[in-house]
Amino acid sequence: MKRIALAVIALGFASPLFSQAKPRARELGVPIDGTAGPLDAITDVAGVEVGHTTLISGTGKLVIGQGPVRTGVTVIHPRGKANPDPVFGAWFTLNGNGEMTGTTWLQESGILEGPIAITNTHSVGVVHDGILQWQVKRPGMQPWGLPVVAETYDGYLNDINGFHVKTEHVFQALDSAKSGPVLEGNVGGGTGMICHGFKGGIGSASRVTGGYTIGVLVQCNYGSRQELRVAGVPVGKEIPDLQRGSDDDDAGSIIVVVATDAPLLPHQLKRIATRVSLGVGRMGGTGGNSSGDIFIAFSTANTRFATDTAIASVRMLPNARISSLFTATMQATEEAIVNAMLAAETMVGVDDHRVHALPHDRLRAAMAKYGRPLK
Amino acid sequence: MKRIALAVIALGFASPLFSQAKPRARELGVPIDGTAGPLDAITDVAGVEVGHTTLISGTGKLVIGQGPVRTGVTVIHPRGKANPDPVFGAWFTLNGNGEMTGTTWLQESGILEGPIAITNTHSVGVVHDGILQWQVKRPGMQPWGLPVVAETYDGYLNDINGFHVKTEHVFQALDSAKSGPVLEGNVGGGTGMICHGFKGGIGSASRVTGGYTIGVLVQCNYGSRQELRVAGVPVGKEIPDLQRGSDDDDAGSIIVVVATDAPLLPHQLKRIATRVSLGVGRMGGTGGNSSGDIFIAFSTANTRFATDTAIASVRMLPNARISSLFTATMQATEEAIVNAMLAAETMVGVDDHRVHALPHDRLRAAMAKYGRPLK
Amino acid sequence: MKRIALAVIALGFASPLFSQAKPRARELGVPIDGTAGPLDAITDVAGVEVGHTTLISGTGKLVIGQGPVRTGVTVIHPRGKANPDPVFGAWFTLNGNGEMTGTTWLQESGILEGPIAITNTHSVGVVHDGILQWQVKRPGMQPWGLPVVAETYDGYLNDINGFHVKTEHVFQALDSAKSGPVLEGNVGGGTGMICHGFKGGIGSASRVTGGYTIGVLVQCNYGSRQELRVAGVPVGKEIPDLQRGSDDDDAGSIIVVVATDAPLLPHQLKRIATRVSLGVGRMGGTGGNSSGDIFIAFSTANTRFATDTAIASVRMLPNARISSLFTATMQATEEAIVNAMLAAETMVGVDDHRVHALPHDRLRAAMAKYGRPLK
Amino acid sequence: MKRIALAVIALGFASPLFSQAKPRARELGVPIDGTAGPLDAITDVAGVEVGHTTLISGTGKLVIGQGPVRTGVTVIHPRGKANPDPVFGAWFTLNGNGEMTGTTWLQESGILEGPIAITNTHSVGVVHDGILQWQVKRPGMQPWGLPVVAETYDGYLNDINGFHVKTEHVFQALDSAKSGPVLEGNVGGGTGMICHGFKGGIGSASRVTGGYTIGVLVQCNYGSRQELRVAGVPVGKEIPDLQRGSDDDDAGSIIVVVATDAPLLPHQLKRIATRVSLGVGRMGGTGGNSSGDIFIAFSTANTRFATDTAIASVRMLPNARISSLFTATMQATEEAIVNAMLAAETMVGVDDHRVHALPHDRLRAAMAKYGRPLK
Repeated sequence: MKRIALAVIALGFASPLFSQAKPRARELGVPIDGTAGPLDAITDVAGVEVGHTTLISGTGKLVIGQGPVRTGVTVIHPRGKANPDPVFGAWFTLNGNGEMTGTTWLQESGILEGPIAITNTHSVGVVHDGILQWQVKRPGMQPWGLPVVAETYDGYLNDINGFHVKTEHVFQALDSAKSGPVLEGNVGGGTGMICHGFKGGIGSASRVTGGYTIGVLVQCNYGSRQELRVAGVPVGKEIPDLQRGSDDDDAGSIIVVVATDAPLLPHQLKRIATRVSLGVGRMGGTGGNSSGDIFIAFSTANTRFATDTAIASVRMLPNARISSLFTATMQATEEAIVNAMLAAETMVGVDDHRVHALPHDRLRAAMAKYGRPLK
Repeated sequence: MKRIALAVIALGFASPLFSQAKPRARELGVPIDGTAGPLDAITDVAGVEVGHTTLISGTGKLVIGQGPVRTGVTVIHPRGKANPDPVFGAWFTLNGNGEMTGTTWLQESGILEGPIAITNTHSVGVVHDGILQWQVKRPGMQPWGLPVVAETYDGYLNDINGFHVKTEHVFQALDSAKSGPVLEGNVGGGTGMICHGFKGGIGSASRVTGGYTIGVLVQCNYGSRQELRVAGVPVGKEIPDLQRGSDDDDAGSIIVVVATDAPLLPHQLKRIATRVSLGVGRMGGTGGNSSGDIFIAFSTANTRFATDTAIASVRMLPNARISSLFTATMQATEEAIVNAMLAAETMVGVDDHRVHALPHDRLRAAMAKYGRPLK
Repeated sequence: MKRIALAVIALGFASPLFSQAKPRARELGVPIDGTAGPLDAITDVAGVEVGHTTLISGTGKLVIGQGPVRTGVTVIHPRGKANPDPVFGAWFTLNGNGEMTGTTWLQESGILEGPIAITNTHSVGVVHDGILQWQVKRPGMQPWGLPVVAETYDGYLNDINGFHVKTEHVFQALDSAKSGPVLEGNVGGGTGMICHGFKGGIGSASRVTGGYTIGVLVQCNYGSRQELRVAGVPVGKEIPDLQRGSDDDDAGSIIVVVATDAPLLPHQLKRIATRVSLGVGRMGGTGGNSSGDIFIAFSTANTRFATDTAIASVRMLPNARISSLFTATMQATEEAIVNAMLAAETMVGVDDHRVHALPHDRLRAAMAKYGRPLK
Repeated sequence: MKRIALAVIALGFASPLFSQAKPRARELGVPIDGTAGPLDAITDVAGVEVGHTTLISGTGKLVIGQGPVRTGVTVIHPRGKANPDPVFGAWFTLNGNGEMTGTTWLQESGILEGPIAITNTHSVGVVHDGILQWQVKRPGMQPWGLPVVAETYDGYLNDINGFHVKTEHVFQALDSAKSGPVLEGNVGGGTGMICHGFKGGIGSASRVTGGYTIGVLVQCNYGSRQELRVAGVPVGKEIPDLQRGSDDDDAGSIIVVVATDAPLLPHQLKRIATRVSLGVGRMGGTGGNSSGDIFIAFSTANTRFATDTAIASVRMLPNARISSLFTATMQATEEAIVNAMLAAETMVGVDDHRVHALPHDRLRAAMAKYGRPLK
């Protein structure tokens, strides 16, 4: 299976067409308010780079350690892989049945000192190790690290107990990260994920407001079909079929990364991270008991505030101007989730488990039925 | 003006017809999921009593200290006014531009030891004092107290700097509280409140799931018109008129009280309180910068766990069964907000400021337009 | 009793000799590390003003509403009473059996927008009201407020259910606040307080490190005799006598206010507030169940960051230089508590309850016995 | 070097005499209050098992990947390795410059579902992976996991970037864990740690109060020499020599695990974890900027509350009885730190860095000088 895996990995981050094959929410005219940036992606925030390693190999019955493999790792470098200058950051948990390492220091210091990685639940350790190994070999890094690694669970499609993500896959994601369009759907950490009973995965979107950009990237793997709504339309109820087995209501998780170039201090970024909840809630998320809904936000606006021992001069957006960023965060979160589902393809994984892609025509029909026709 | 005020106060808690005059969300068929309890109110949780003191007097130009007065106080007794047995409780803040006193001890101890009161921003002190004065005269109370008092701002309609709520008004609300239907709209602490640019105030709703009841009471005073949605329908955009002056976007606040008879421990009630956010978000709340969106949840299921020094035996709902309560909390929050707006009447207050009630016919038209016709 | 009260009030804030009568920790040579500022008080931070209203009247048997009265209110203006420019701030709770209003907004915004007041448990409401009434009459204030009012319980000496603090007493403390030496012991909010079984109350101290000042003010009313230690010496065990009734172990509370001119952001001030715990712990505090140990910290360094909607430029101390401020906070907290006990005089209150002052000679003997002789 | 490492690993968990060679705090008569349990260790809480894997090999100049190696992993099973029944738990951070994975779910659920592991900073990932691999092979475990792995930094003595902890070392610690005396000093995760400039590592202690046991295990690697105090005596100032290079003030971290058989609910365990701070503070800890001072507490009292979907019946200690457990937590934390330093031997590691053990005779002299003579 190794050969297939490598082939797919290469495709995973090399093909600019991969995610372009299917229209995104903006192209379809999904009526989520606000103005998107040029890429409608987290990479609209200057400097942000995203890399994916996608591992897809094997078919048929699960043999632990052999596959089938449907997993990967996604990496976000806040200022790009070549720039280790920290950013201000903060995090928030809607429901904590999940992991995001590195958050204790993030909360204490208000500073995010490296990349953010997202993978499957049982690969947190190897990705943590991989980031450290990558960091300690690079100049300008501190001699120790507390990497930020988050996860969602892909065991329905992937041989998760086979621990297929290896250190080199982490390096690939770290090194291949780039600006520009973000691959969406069945890629990177999102490869084997399920969202509202449809195939989920990686999605991204952005909003521009007041001269600033909010960029969002999600790895979505949460929610019941019944609760899915798009721009207020009860799409999930309109498509009760195309389920994997039973509707496993609140299983799953969603990791959301918010980037901005607005000059927000750590306590303000905490407010941004909290607002992600509302975007997830509008899509039909409930923060169910078995869901790990964990959100992180960072700002690239202030630079070199942690480089030496001199008093730093930092800029701060007054609170009186922050509300439009809250709204933008909610909008971009909604749209990133929709984009993930629109991009994802139907996938068959372990034991021939099949998870259906959200059919664009069915979405179109549902939206039209509720007075929200798409283009 | 005093005479008028007293007359209205009496009406405020005596007339069972006051809030029945206009249909509620259930009667109209607003399509928010879930099964309501018999009263569709927080009082569906056995033992809960609600009392209002409503202060309405004067018209015309603002004279600080004289009026016009459009304010009041609402009180919730978790087990009824005659039963001082504490309940487990917890709280959560979506946006903290507001006050809820008593939460430091609530968070530390997991225990709520008295009533919850909601009033206007500048009457927190007098209500705090009033509850203490009321408590220290009653047998079975501890010799000191840390009352829970929350607020939203009614200065657009009310002479808030006139400090018109007095200790006796607090006593009236405490003493007149009762089970049964909950008065909604322009009553109690909600008298002068504004919600999504329409007249807001007090609303309530409930959900029954898995043998347990979730009851919600809101004092809603938050949100922009533009963002208002009802069951996913963009009602605010459909009714851009009927504004008070300009659309003061994120001004205002919402206080939400959640009661349940499900046997939840304090850390589980924290999860419930957090889910209120998602209900507010679905209505169009964004936790705007100047909003005080503060939520408290309590459970009446366990009793007498804090009465002496013996080891208490308490019941705990397993986390595996908690998700349906999360969903119920969101649904009841949405419906309680809608009920507040449906019950509230157009009000004219200080300087002839006018805030329009949500017109039921316009709501009906908007819902129909988006495939969600009401009854 | 009113006449006596007024006389004492006047003395409370007028006599510069009041707290000078007895030597303070520095003068005695209590070996707590670090370098104090010129005043060894919170007012070493430029701009900080402190005001007390002290209410002492009546003797003998408790008659609720009449007395005896042993209470008051203490106010801290971060930039002085004439300067409403907000400061960055944060808070922390070691044990939350107490109240500090206004903290929800403080945590959300990172901004403290008015004075801090400390009083008795049952006067929180009237002080809250008083601050608002004072603020709404002053130019430059916002039209609403969320005052910060904290408390400790003085019911052993004071007719606390008589609610003797009135609005005018709040105004007096607000208006009489000044820079310079801080009155300590039985003054202001600390008038009737008890600390480790000795007479407690208000204390202050400061430390200068790295070019910055940390100033601390405590209202101390916590702790058991058994646990009292001074600079590591088990002073409480050495003075097991001079108790009020029984050693009421963990009853009581401590409110601590930390001011600094170091340019700390809100998330950094949270770290400072957290370190107060360690100073309290070194004195023998345990955060006992019935204790309200609540700490607030603010920085005067950045100014005018919240005055309009322009991007603010603020200075930030790098985290690499913050540790000495942590240590200074602990040291100043310890010394402020010692100063409160050294300044306080033996007091007789309701029902002839007597609380002894810490005898300086006994302290001196205990310190010498453990190799820590005083001057 | 591999051969030596294996030899030492075997010794690490097999020799009951290893930590008995030097007297512990109780034997020396260090005057920390309270009554210890029979073992004066975390294992006084019935069911708790502790396992260490100790990796010591090589000498001389650092060659990354080869050594010298001075590290390991320590594991605590709350109910023993054979019993996967979860426990209630909670955590607290004094200063968050460190990592403890799994805490997001711990805080959300109040439940700790597996072992706790402590290792070096750069081995968090491999230990995380190792626990998952161990868990997924065992019956009765859930199909996924969020392991709790904490760390402190041993790069002064250990080739930390050589990543010498391997999966099999994790298995060894997990499988060899046992009840009975706890090895202390240079063992397990504590092998290469430094405390107040002396050799630190693993320490343990316990207190019995009110019929319940509090057991503490520390991996101590924090603090400056200058600040070290033992039972209030300024021991660090009395032993200014025996330093490694310079006094690297606030570098390092301390992980503390508190076990109890008192029936505490999650929100009560949070209070216990918070009190650990005060014990660390009394020893001279300041929560310095570069310190990861992270504490976790669990209770074994309630069982089988998370095994199915029935309502669980759990016991709760009334808050009125919790204060003595707070005090016990502080005392056991202090004593565990002292025990770690008393047991640790002088160690020479990478580049011939030498860290001195705390000389018992010097400690004895310092204690006597300050009126606290040891036995």
